[in-house]
Amino acid sequence: MTRAWNFSAGPATLPLEVLQQVREDLPEWHGIGASIMEVSHRGKAFSGVIEAAQADLRELLAIPEDYEVLFLQGGQTLQFAQVPMNLLAGRSADYLVTGAWSQKAHREAARIGKARLVASTEENGKFLRLPDIDALKFDENAAYCHLCTNETIHGVEVHEAYEAKLFEAISAAAPGVSLVADMSSHILSRPLDVRRYGLLSAGAQKNIGPSGMTLVIVRKALLGRAAAGTPTILDYRNQADNGSMLNTPPAFAIYVAGLVFQWLKAQGGLDAMAAINREKAKRLYAAIDNSEGFYKNPVDVACRSSMNVPFTLPSVALEAQFVQASEAAGFIGLKGHKSVGGIRASLYNAVPLEAVQALVRFMEDFRETWRRRGASR
Amino acid sequence: MTRAWNFSAGPATLPLEVLQQVREDLPEWHGIGASIMEVSHRGKAFSGVIEAAQADLRELLAIPEDYEVLFLQGGQTLQFAQVPMNLLAGRSADYLVTGAWSQKAHREAARIGKARLVASTEENGKFLRLPDIDALKFDENAAYCHLCTNETIHGVEVHEAYEAKLFEAISAAAPGVSLVADMSSHILSRPLDVRRYGLLSAGAQKNIGPSGMTLVIVRKALLGRAAAGTPTILDYRNQADNGSMLNTPPAFAIYVAGLVFQWLKAQGGLDAMAAINREKAKRLYAAIDNSEGFYKNPVDVACRSSMNVPFTLPSVALEAQFVQASEAAGFIGLKGHKSVGGIRASLYNAVPLEAVQALVRFMEDFRETWRRRGASR
Repeated sequence: MTRAWNFSAGPATLPLEVLQQVREDLPEWHGIGASIMEVSHRGKAFSGVIEAAQADLRELLAIPEDYEVLFLQGGQTLQFAQVPMNLLAGRSADYLVTGAWSQKAHREAARIGKARLVASTEENGKFLRLPDIDALKFDENAAYCHLCTNETIHGVEVHEAYEAKLFEAISAAAPGVSLVADMSSHILSRPLDVRRYGLLSAGAQKNIGPSGMTLVIVRKALLGRAAAGTPTILDYRNQADNGSMLNTPPAFAIYVAGLVFQWLKAQGGLDAMAAINREKAKRLYAAIDNSEGFYKNPVDVACRSSMNVPFTLPSVALEAQFVQASEAAGFIGLKGHKSVGGIRASLYNAVPLEAVQALVRFMEDFRETWRRRGASR
Repeated sequence: MTRAWNFSAGPATLPLEVLQQVREDLPEWHGIGASIMEVSHRGKAFSGVIEAAQADLRELLAIPEDYEVLFLQGGQTLQFAQVPMNLLAGRSADYLVTGAWSQKAHREAARIGKARLVASTEENGKFLRLPDIDALKFDENAAYCHLCTNETIHGVEVHEAYEAKLFEAISAAAPGVSLVADMSSHILSRPLDVRRYGLLSAGAQKNIGPSGMTLVIVRKALLGRAAAGTPTILDYRNQADNGSMLNTPPAFAIYVAGLVFQWLKAQGGLDAMAAINREKAKRLYAAIDNSEGFYKNPVDVACRSSMNVPFTLPSVALEAQFVQASEAAGFIGLKGHKSVGGIRASLYNAVPLEAVQALVRFMEDFRETWRRRGASR
C-alpha cells in the first residue's frame, strides 16, 4: 500500500492521519456499537461530533459570536443561487469577476435577480489579475458585493493585503454593503478576519473534508431576508435555527471535517498552516520561474494563488507527456482543468512540503530529459 | 468490538460487509494511491464507481431506459421543493397526505405554487390508514399527483396491492397525470414497477447508504419544465445532462451506496429482500399483537409498514424504561420520533432477521418482568 503525491484540485487529498482515524472508527465508533454514519443525527454521539466540529472551526478561524456557522449540502454551486435568494431582498448586488467561478456566481445571480458587474478582469478569455481597487465603483445601495477569493481554475488569489484594501475601500464608498465571498479553494489556508465579510462559503472538498458538505459562515444580522417562495431548507435562517439539521445532515462528511479541524489544530492552527503553504507555493513558483521559460505561469505575481498553481509547457503534446510521466512516477491530479488545459498543481493544507519537493524534482528531471533529447536531435 | 442491534430510523444501520469494505478501501482504494474521497469526480476511478452504482441500481429496480437516475444532494426535504419547481409548470398538483412526510411535502409545494389536497387521513392528529381509493377525486389537469409511499414516523405503507389499484384509478380518472412519490424509507425493500411513477425519490440514509445523497428516478419526458429562476443546479434536466455531476457530487456517499447495491445483488436482489423483510415484519407485529395489549400498534393492518414499526406501551414511564433497558441490552435507535413518542423499530434491509428475533425476545422478557412485578405488588 502506497500513497501517491496527490495534487488534485478537489475532491483533494486528506491528511493521512485523518484517513487512518476514519478507518479505525469502522465498523464501530467510540464503543457505541455502530459507525457514526449509522446513528440518529439527533442522538448524543452525532450531536457531539457536529458541536465539536463547529467549536473547533470557530476557534481556528476566530469566528465572532454574531456569526452563524452552517454545515449544508449542495456545494458552492448551490450557494451561487442560495446567496441571492437569501440576501438580495429585491435589491441589486455587485459582482467582481476574476475567473471562472466568480463568473458562474454572477451569471447565476443574474438569473435570480439583479446582479451588477462591478469589474471583470477577463482579457481574451483569460483571467490573470485582480481589478485595481481604486478604480472600482461600488453601488452604495447594493444588497452585497460578491467575489471569489481564490479562483481554483485560473489560479488567482486575493491575498491578505489586497483583501484589507478592498474592505477599506468598500467600507468607505458603500458603508452598508457587506462583502460576500466564495472561499472554496483557500479557506483555512491562512488566518482570516471574518468580520470583513457578511457571508463566506466554501465547498468542503478542498481544505475542509470530503465532498458533500458546504460551509457557510454568515453574520446573524443578514438572516431573515429570504425571498418569498425560497425553499424552506434553503433559507439560512431556518438552518441556523435548527443547528444545520433542519433535515438529516451529511453526517459522514461533517464527521471527517471535524477530524480535519482537529488535525489543523494539532498542526498549530492557521498561522502554522499559512507558513507551510507559503513555503510550498514559493518553491513551486520558483521551479516554474527558474525553468528558462519551459514552465510558465501567466498570473500577475501579486495575486498568484498559493493553493492552485496552473502552468503550461511549450506544447500541448509535451503537457500530455508530462501528465503521463507524472502518473507513472506516482503523482495524481496534475492535469489542468479541461476549460484551460495545461497543468495544475493544487497545494491544499493536506499536501505536505515533501510532495512539493518531489514535484519540483520531477519537473526538473522532466525538463532535463526534454533538453537532452533536443540536444541529441 | 461489538455491533449493536441497530433499529435506527435513519441514518440507519449499513450491512457489516459494506462497512468492512469501506475500511479495507482506506487509506487507499484499488491501488490508485489515494482513497476514493480524494480523487477527481471526473477521473477514471470515480467515474467507474458512479457508473457501476447506476448500472447496479438500474438492474435491481429494473429501471426502464426512458428514466434518468440522478444522485443529488439536499435530502428528501429539498425534493419537496425541487419537485414543484421542476414539474408544476404553472399548473396545480394533487397531494395525498397520509403522515408527517407527505404533509411536509404538501406544505412546501403550497409555498411554491398551487398544491391541492386530494385527501388527508389525519384524525385527531394521528395517521392510521391510507385513503379509500374509490373516493379519491383526481384533478385531470394536475401537473402530477404526489404521495409518500412509506411514512417513516407514522408507520403507514403503500403495499403492492394498494399501489397497483391507485395507479389504475389515476390512469382511468386522470390519464395524463403522473404519480410522484417520496419513497425514502422503503425504496429497495421490495420490487417496484417504476413505470407507475413519473418521478420517485429517496433520501439515502435508510435503505441506500449514508446520509448526504438523494436518489431521484425521473421519466425523461418530464424534464425541461423547470420554472424560470430555478437555480441551475436544481433543474433535473441539467443534472441529467451532466450525469449527476453538474458540480462535485457527494462522492463518498455514492461510493457506499454502490457497495450497498452490490450487497443487495449478492443477497439475491429485491425479491429475496422482500421475503426477508416480510418475515421480519411478521414476527415483530406478531409480538406486538400477541402481547395481550401490552404493546400496541394502532395502524390499519392493511397498511402497516414493514419498514417502520411504531408501537406504544401502557405508559410513557414504561416506554422510557423500555428504551433504557433496550440500550443496556445492546439495542440502538428504538426511541420513537419526538413528534409522536412511544417506540419505533425500523427494519430496513440491513437489519438482519436475528436482530428482530433478539428484539422480540427482549420485548417478551420486558413484558414478563413487568407482569411479575405487578403480581408481586
